[in-house]
Amino acid sequence: MEQYPIEITSVHNPRVKAAARLRDRRHREKQGQILIDGARELLRALEGEVKVLEVYFCPALGDRPASRDALAAAVAQGAQIIHVTEAVFDRLAFGQRAEGVVAVAEMPLRKLADVSLSANPLVAVLEGVEKPGNLGAVVRSADAAGVDAVIAADPITDLYNPNAIRASLGAVFAVPICADTAAAVLDWLRQRRMNIVAARVDGSLLYTDVDYRLPAAIVLGSEAEGLSDLWHGPDVTPVRLPMLGKVDSLNVSAAAAVIFYEARRQRGIRRS
Amino acid sequence: MEQYPIEITSVHNPRVKAAARLRDRRHREKQGQILIDGARELLRALEGEVKVLEVYFCPALGDRPASRDALAAAVAQGAQIIHVTEAVFDRLAFGQRAEGVVAVAEMPLRKLADVSLSANPLVAVLEGVEKPGNLGAVVRSADAAGVDAVIAADPITDLYNPNAIRASLGAVFAVPICADTAAAVLDWLRQRRMNIVAARVDGSLLYTDVDYRLPAAIVLGSEAEGLSDLWHGPDVTPVRLPMLGKVDSLNVSAAAAVIFYEARRQRGIRRS
Repeated sequence: MEQYPIEITSVHNPRVKAAARLRDRRHREKQGQILIDGARELLRALEGEVKVLEVYFCPALGDRPASRDALAAAVAQGAQIIHVTEAVFDRLAFGQRAEGVVAVAEMPLRKLADVSLSANPLVAVLEGVEKPGNLGAVVRSADAAGVDAVIAADPITDLYNPNAIRASLGAVFAVPICADTAAAVLDWLRQRRMNIVAARVDGSLLYTDVDYRLPAAIVLGSEAEGLSDLWHGPDVTPVRLPMLGKVDSLNVSAAAAVIFYEARRQRGIRRS
Repeated sequence: MEQYPIEITSVHNPRVKAAARLRDRRHREKQGQILIDGARELLRALEGEVKVLEVYFCPALGDRPASRDALAAAVAQGAQIIHVTEAVFDRLAFGQRAEGVVAVAEMPLRKLADVSLSANPLVAVLEGVEKPGNLGAVVRSADAAGVDAVIAADPITDLYNPNAIRASLGAVFAVPICADTAAAVLDWLRQRRMNIVAARVDGSLLYTDVDYRLPAAIVLGSEAEGLSDLWHGPDVTPVRLPMLGKVDSLNVSAAAAVIFYEARRQRGIRRS
């Protein structure tokens, strides 16, 4: 903020309009740009070496330390800071007032082949994920549990939907994430000789009865559809979470967290 | 559906208007009635001996087996079935088209003193929960993990917010739930000599390092505020989930699921 930020006071400003259009997936994909709401999320993006182009900041919404840190980090990495009025901010933020911070960044484009794994990796695969909030919540839990990467197989949502970013608290910029077809993902796991553990309501083993201490992939399907038949091979171990009550499934993000943390427990929480 | 259902075709019908008002908490509390969206959720309510008064069904939205089962069960328990047009249904359902089923029921009123526990209970306490979706998700996981009861301490949301019902898939009618002040809840736990395990980001023990095999209460705070000071007593064991990445907390429903299932694992999944 030591440089002189430019100021925009009109909701009709073309730059504001272009940024606001990035709420729409079509425009994100066409422009190769994304919107990041919130100071914490922006910091995660900057730490994750995402190229942040411009940051819209509304001073009228308060001057929080988190916002100041995020703006300073953005300036240091060459982003332009644009001060805006509340009316302009509302046009950009679609009610997500967050910390008065919305940023435009280049969409990170990571391919399966670019995902680098640790020596003894634990990865998560999410097939057919539709709700951005579920994707974000799974990535948040994956980050917390020390999962190496989250791979979206045949996703329906795009990875950088603003709600996915938000639900992840910005963890989508910390944990390597990428998307590919389910067939390509399965090939990739097989080439790396991962133990493939697929959560299914009809899994023959309890999720606690498999060994996650070797390279492992935890595969979860969408709540509506479950996993596709692709995950029925002899090298895929189907596991279930016990369902002791009336409901017949957990929310996918709850199931993911339970299995990630079971894997972490088996691997030794303190070792990491 | 063997009786003759009445039919309503006007969105101005006073009965429809009265039912629609139940989307509003103030009206729910004034009328002592709730709205239940969805066939599965309605079935859970009927199984849970909730008094269902009337069921609005929109045949134009399709005739699914789940809806038919729910309507038959509602009729068997004395509820009135009302057929409505799509326009009327939309007025009632606020876009939650679900299975073309919205029911009005008496609000279950359970007090702490009414909660009956198993011989070796596991209960969940949720302090200051604000988002209905979080409450519902926690109750869904509690049901799945075989938790005896979910107690809301000083909740900000009401327990039977339609979004809580929906996020729980109706488990709010299967798992005993009730609300009271945090002080009353703590007293109740102490009187029952429960091991009180409180999840805090600064917990001194890992959540895997406590014993959940005796009567235990798992206490979780809101994401915004954490737990109040009330849970700092010498008889409260603070535990943390390991956070191995960049984010500093799990979503409350993910944290709840992880701890519930760790307790279940320790207690022996197959015994239940």
